[in-house]
Amino acid sequence: MKEIGNIGFVTPHTYRFDTPIKLQNGHILSQFELIVETYGELNAERNNAVLICHALSGNHHVAGYHHSDDKYPGWWDNMVGPNKPVDTNRFFVVGLNNLGGCHGSSGPLSVNPETNQPYGANFPMVTVKDWVNSQAMLADRLGINQWAAVMGGSLGGMQALQWAIDYPQRLRHALIIASAPKLSTQNIAFNDVARQAILTDPDFCQGQYNQQNTIPRRGLRIARMMGHITYLAEDGLGKKFGRQMQQDNYQYDYNIEFEVESYLRHQGEKFADAFDANSYLLMTKALDYFDPARDYEDDLIKAVQRIEAKTFIASFSSDWRFSPKRSQELLDALVAAKKSVQYIALESANGHDAFLMEDEHYLAAIRIYFNNIAQELA
Amino acid sequence: MKEIGNIGFVTPHTYRFDTPIKLQNGHILSQFELIVETYGELNAERNNAVLICHALSGNHHVAGYHHSDDKYPGWWDNMVGPNKPVDTNRFFVVGLNNLGGCHGSSGPLSVNPETNQPYGANFPMVTVKDWVNSQAMLADRLGINQWAAVMGGSLGGMQALQWAIDYPQRLRHALIIASAPKLSTQNIAFNDVARQAILTDPDFCQGQYNQQNTIPRRGLRIARMMGHITYLAEDGLGKKFGRQMQQDNYQYDYNIEFEVESYLRHQGEKFADAFDANSYLLMTKALDYFDPARDYEDDLIKAVQRIEAKTFIASFSSDWRFSPKRSQELLDALVAAKKSVQYIALESANGHDAFLMEDEHYLAAIRIYFNNIAQELA
Repeated sequence: MKEIGNIGFVTPHTYRFDTPIKLQNGHILSQFELIVETYGELNAERNNAVLICHALSGNHHVAGYHHSDDKYPGWWDNMVGPNKPVDTNRFFVVGLNNLGGCHGSSGPLSVNPETNQPYGANFPMVTVKDWVNSQAMLADRLGINQWAAVMGGSLGGMQALQWAIDYPQRLRHALIIASAPKLSTQNIAFNDVARQAILTDPDFCQGQYNQQNTIPRRGLRIARMMGHITYLAEDGLGKKFGRQMQQDNYQYDYNIEFEVESYLRHQGEKFADAFDANSYLLMTKALDYFDPARDYEDDLIKAVQRIEAKTFIASFSSDWRFSPKRSQELLDALVAAKKSVQYIALESANGHDAFLMEDEHYLAAIRIYFNNIAQELA
Repeated sequence: MKEIGNIGFVTPHTYRFDTPIKLQNGHILSQFELIVETYGELNAERNNAVLICHALSGNHHVAGYHHSDDKYPGWWDNMVGPNKPVDTNRFFVVGLNNLGGCHGSSGPLSVNPETNQPYGANFPMVTVKDWVNSQAMLADRLGINQWAAVMGGSLGGMQALQWAIDYPQRLRHALIIASAPKLSTQNIAFNDVARQAILTDPDFCQGQYNQQNTIPRRGLRIARMMGHITYLAEDGLGKKFGRQMQQDNYQYDYNIEFEVESYLRHQGEKFADAFDANSYLLMTKALDYFDPARDYEDDLIKAVQRIEAKTFIASFSSDWRFSPKRSQELLDALVAAKKSVQYIALESANGHDAFLMEDEHYLAAIRIYFNNIAQELA
């Protein structure tokens, strides 16, 4: 029996790009950096590389540990590692922090070479297309002409879809998990509330809060608390917390009364400690703007017509942020365009966050899919 | 053919109560006022009175107009009026602003007689039970021993249910619309985010914002924007706004891009202009605390065992704040307790707010129900 293990200790590496990149909004970044982690070995044929694209609050640290005192491994450690569904004994797996992020790639926290000041709110707005273009430059740098697969959940799945449309020759498989071909009205509405919470926080200081030695904590907290509710399902939330109280009797004040309040506020505080507000704002706009059909007369079938990769779609029954219906839209377009597509509709009580969680059927489906990709390599 | 008309001009009336009321949290209000509107005439038998209970942001102004330049009539004008479903030619209809409200009844904006200062955040926390008790005192004052019906949507439906449990002899019908026997974990979670947005707004000033000549507008705006999304359904929102933009091209900034953002922000501003933050906080806590089964060993069947009124339950298919499943819970308990109950599960794309909207089947169902009540009077 094979040992299923953690990848162990990993060290990120920063790649610097001096070739200018023209962004979708017309802005040209004359130089930028991407922080990257890789797991496993690129084979001699250079055809076993897998790109993992992160979601709203993710980063390059996909699997393994940085330090012996790390409490948690990378965010998709249950998916990526030796003999795990994305098996690092067979695949060379690449994780990166997207442009505009706050974990080491060029973004609002970086110094603008033109002013020698941190960009802050002046970092240009980036889109999913921009991310894919920058990831293609990274692939060039790593000597990867064609990915075995590009894979992601949520906003990460959108990048996988955009890759398949924009660079049809450069990937053989696209895995689009808990995602959607564009945001719904409700999705956009929730994003706007989250942004308004941050933008109207007096500590936001027009985005130059770092120069003022402050952080828009209130806004980040509220944005994350609300977001967190929408990432979970009533089912899972109800099973975990129900109406459990911190004390036996109602307290009749505004302190924490129910356990779920304590949990949510903790999530809010953690996020406000860890995430940059300007990056958060940028990322939510990238979500809003994502709409690959827009370049093809608003016709998703036309947009996916370009795809040459085989596609794999997964959705989760209780995900109401990107519901199974949204995956079905993409499936329908791919079928109408006569593309190779597999779709698995998973049962889960864990809502949108299910794509990050342990689930036997989900992980088995991905494992089988990657086993098939591995056989193509042999 | 009968003319279906608006009730015309109405004038609210304020009732002062000098009998102390003991609240559920132990606090005693030595005196209080309730602002009330009535429509139609109380008959000689005093048996045609209908109490309308309001939801989170409602008030006593149920139907008709106050002034000739009023833009809109009362909040349930499509339901209450001459020859409307709740027909004021036959019924004496009573609307009030609940205790703790901000539209004329005693609440945070009122002067505390003990200090001669506005209560502000010191107004005691009130519960659905407290509201029902104060409404029973109002019934006494109006000479109404038994309501023909007590009726409400959402938080208003909770009051109708509590009435039926706490004062079984004092109502013949309870109409519980788009409601639930208690909040779900997700409901509580959304309420906590809304409260946190207000409580952490620097302009909240520990609830004494009026003395500081300020208003926690930011918090109220965010609370309402988020709340508003949850009152509507993706279906309705999508049909109304879709991904319509204000300009043809993406602007790549944080100004309004999509129409739904404009709509939501407008709702937020309107609410911040009109609603008192302390009242809003109180009302959301009343929602959280509502759980009539709690007094009956957490057994809803036992709680409803006391009911003598006939009950009518209505739910709306796309209401995900208080989904049809929540109405079904109440239905199941009433059936198990062998009570008289009618349940209508309505199709609607309008989410939770459907209970306030024009809908032919919904209004017809209420009309038929009240026709039957009217026949009992004859």
